[in-house]
Amino acid sequence: MPLWHVYHPPGAYDPGHKQRLSADVTGFYTRVGLPKFYVIVLFHEVAADSFHVGGEPHGQAVRVVVEHIARHTQDPRHRRHTRETLAALLAPHTTERGLYCELHIDETPQDLWMIDGLTPPPPDSETERAWARDNRPTPY
Amino acid sequence: MPLWHVYHPPGAYDPGHKQRLSADVTGFYTRVGLPKFYVIVLFHEVAADSFHVGGEPHGQAVRVVVEHIARHTQDPRHRRHTRETLAALLAPHTTERGLYCELHIDETPQDLWMIDGLTPPPPDSETERAWARDNRPTPY
Amino acid sequence: MPLWHVYHPPGAYDPGHKQRLSADVTGFYTRVGLPKFYVIVLFHEVAADSFHVGGEPHGQAVRVVVEHIARHTQDPRHRRHTRETLAALLAPHTTERGLYCELHIDETPQDLWMIDGLTPPPPDSETERAWARDNRPTPY
Repeated sequence: MPLWHVYHPPGAYDPGHKQRLSADVTGFYTRVGLPKFYVIVLFHEVAADSFHVGGEPHGQAVRVVVEHIARHTQDPRHRRHTRETLAALLAPHTTERGLYCELHIDETPQDLWMIDGLTPPPPDSETERAWARDNRPTPY
Repeated sequence: MPLWHVYHPPGAYDPGHKQRLSADVTGFYTRVGLPKFYVIVLFHEVAADSFHVGGEPHGQAVRVVVEHIARHTQDPRHRRHTRETLAALLAPHTTERGLYCELHIDETPQDLWMIDGLTPPPPDSETERAWARDNRPTPY
Repeated sequence: MPLWHVYHPPGAYDPGHKQRLSADVTGFYTRVGLPKFYVIVLFHEVAADSFHVGGEPHGQAVRVVVEHIARHTQDPRHRRHTRETLAALLAPHTTERGLYCELHIDETPQDLWMIDGLTPPPPDSETERAWARDNRPTPY
């Protein structure tokens, strides 16, 4: 967690661009203390004739699907901050380059999640901080 | 929202067929007032040896994953109507062509969703109707 | 249900290996009585430069996304058993072969689910047992 799926037109992102985008995404989560390796971003090329918006092929659209597991909040201001910050983070990679962009986030259960055979530690725990420091999961 | 993923055998759908399927899907949502451009359908070819049903490769199966964001309902009759209508809509594109078909819908939070940098308007609001009329998101 | 997505490096799994992995997955669910054909496993190759972990391309990671529909439980011990058993099931296919592995499970609504035009029968019902016995959905 988080898991990001970025569905994008062929050729929209070269390897360097993908890395800048995923670095921006990763920074959002590490700033609130999550281990860097928690952030997985998968890029999926989808050709226009397989990418339909409103019933028509679309060659300039990016659809981002995010799954949040490690952190959930019920606070409406926090939720607004999350969606607006992530949309702003994506803007230079999408709308500012002429790519239409839609994003949504799902929240999935923390207790149905495993990393390398280990149950991830509780949010803000000492073990989570150690995982963040080492940037890898270690038995605890 | 809605986002449709259609996982299908290579060659099952040519571009024209994809367009008919996504037009049928789009019509379902626009009939209840959603803006046309809200409906995104992504087609993903999956070869038989990467598409297993019951532990065996399957070359004639379609798996549809739907994410609903803009509209949720708790009314059991409405939910039954939704699932049955969508299955019926898919039948000419799947079972009636000899393709096995499974479909499920997830419902994700309305307040963790952004379109082109904007928070989508509330359901059935004047702004949503304007977006539907213009078939594009405009600042409000 | 369940639906498994396995995102993996190109070449990590040949057809025989995919079949062993999906047979192991399928066995987990059939042991608790689910029809074999309920289990769908989709394998998706993702090249290193489209598979980022912690902001960097990663050529040796497997990310598994599971969607559970037919069975949900609130019992913490049962949930722990599920996540640990599935992680252990994946170990010979991932960590024991030097592949980093993250897994999470989402739970989606039972009443927004259709198989071949039919509403799947209730958990542990006579019809579900008949579907398991016949390994196919039959009208009821």
